[in-house]
Amino acid sequence: MLKLFGSAVAGTLTVAGGATTFYPDSVMHLKKRFLVEAREASSSVNDVNMSHGTKWNYNWDMREPSSLVKPLKQNATPEEIEEYKQAKDKMKPKATRIIVMVRHGQYNLQGRDDSQRYLTELGRKQAASTGQRLGLLYDHYLNKKKEDENGNKQKPRVRLVKSTMTRATETGDIIHQHLPDLDIQPCDLIREGAPCKPDPHTVHWVPDPWDFFQEGARIEAGFRKYFHRADPTQTEDSVDILVCHGNVIRYCVCRALQIDPAAWLRMSVHNGSITVVAVPPSGRVKVTQVGEAGHFSPDMLTFN
Amino acid sequence: MLKLFGSAVAGTLTVAGGATTFYPDSVMHLKKRFLVEAREASSSVNDVNMSHGTKWNYNWDMREPSSLVKPLKQNATPEEIEEYKQAKDKMKPKATRIIVMVRHGQYNLQGRDDSQRYLTELGRKQAASTGQRLGLLYDHYLNKKKEDENGNKQKPRVRLVKSTMTRATETGDIIHQHLPDLDIQPCDLIREGAPCKPDPHTVHWVPDPWDFFQEGARIEAGFRKYFHRADPTQTEDSVDILVCHGNVIRYCVCRALQIDPAAWLRMSVHNGSITVVAVPPSGRVKVTQVGEAGHFSPDMLTFN
Repeated sequence: MLKLFGSAVAGTLTVAGGATTFYPDSVMHLKKRFLVEAREASSSVNDVNMSHGTKWNYNWDMREPSSLVKPLKQNATPEEIEEYKQAKDKMKPKATRIIVMVRHGQYNLQGRDDSQRYLTELGRKQAASTGQRLGLLYDHYLNKKKEDENGNKQKPRVRLVKSTMTRATETGDIIHQHLPDLDIQPCDLIREGAPCKPDPHTVHWVPDPWDFFQEGARIEAGFRKYFHRADPTQTEDSVDILVCHGNVIRYCVCRALQIDPAAWLRMSVHNGSITVVAVPPSGRVKVTQVGEAGHFSPDMLTFN
Repeated sequence: MLKLFGSAVAGTLTVAGGATTFYPDSVMHLKKRFLVEAREASSSVNDVNMSHGTKWNYNWDMREPSSLVKPLKQNATPEEIEEYKQAKDKMKPKATRIIVMVRHGQYNLQGRDDSQRYLTELGRKQAASTGQRLGLLYDHYLNKKKEDENGNKQKPRVRLVKSTMTRATETGDIIHQHLPDLDIQPCDLIREGAPCKPDPHTVHWVPDPWDFFQEGARIEAGFRKYFHRADPTQTEDSVDILVCHGNVIRYCVCRALQIDPAAWLRMSVHNGSITVVAVPPSGRVKVTQVGEAGHFSPDMLTFN
């Protein structure tokens, strides 16, 4: 470790000017604390070990090879062990699946139903800019692909999927103009909705419990449809671009990270932003960006 | 809810071409599943409710107003109740603190100690591009500030803090060229290190338990120093730009979200990327982007 990162404790500890320097008027250091919420505080304020005790579930997508082959008997013969290993190897994924989630652009908040909640002018501009960015990333991805014996690049397995709500359909169609090679398909499972009760709760958004009951299962079905490791027969990496919605994106990030889905409202993602999740053959998910909107000029940044 | 999002179940359910269309060679639907890992799977595969049972801790930064005033007695008089309310109001933050974490640029991986782990040419280019982006965001932020009676803009409370490791110091100094108005300060607490044992574990990175013991507490100290709601005396919003490291950033994101810190390795952030956490007066943290690198052209995207 010392070799890898250099010594973190070498030399004098240099700490950026304390709170009293930056905020000369701080009263916090003068305050006596009353731990009226000691029960809640104890686990995360007084201890440095803040583990929640939940463990990574390797079979989160029901594709862990060991769950797809008949288990070994207690006293298996060497031949049976060899057979088991080969059967498991056959079930091992070979490719990485990348899931790119794009939030729709800014839309008409005054709309009374979905059809009236179309993109604003800025929303269309955001969608075009995100389409352009994805086009650049696609070209870069394509350039790195190997050429076949005829000098042609393999066509990467990339598809566009758009939620069937107006603002996502419009966003998806504008993005499609920048990626005309790709198939584009509609999907109801990734429509906006109430994924699950958020914690902390908020008084600004209180859906009917019925909404969580209905839409929660439907959004979870969307997650299970698109988030999983590759089929063992898939030899090339693939990319799914899902043009969808803020709640769906935040819920899927929680689920992919295997953290409590109730945490979804602790994040916000910009309109037109890009969120990327990679699922390698091992099934060890990597979230590489959440709500990326660095391709927008600052005046294009909106949350709704 | 139906009003807010439109009906999610209206019309026929449209689902993007099933796995069998996109992956015509899928074998997954033919497989019998053997739930050898049923114990682990049960909580997240068979149930839709995947709550971890951990609750948001409102006093995560020891600044919840109710923890800073003497608790009310059981049979308090109306005057005492009024006094209590006023004392609590005095402790309420008024401003939002924004913490921007920037990962250093690409560096010389062959370096044997910290001083040799300086930025590569690309690393310096990344730092300059990120400095430019932050400069744009700063100008935009400044433009939105109110003018005082003399027509001058209030100077926003923004500071730059850089880890004392070579690659972060270099990155911070390059960024500083694009934000020359700002103070820049060094800090040892946000140097790179081993924050806590990751789950799932990885065979590619196995620090000594001593590293977690020492560096874990030091990085946690860094988190507690910079991540908290504003002092009650702070009237204006403020921004802390921390130029630091991948592990520190991922750990701080977990801590800010109040998720299990062991999840930090389930994320990756690009060199030079921008991660933003807002702490409003309520203490309800919002993570608005993680590992944002959309300001880079695709050929500038690196992870180390």
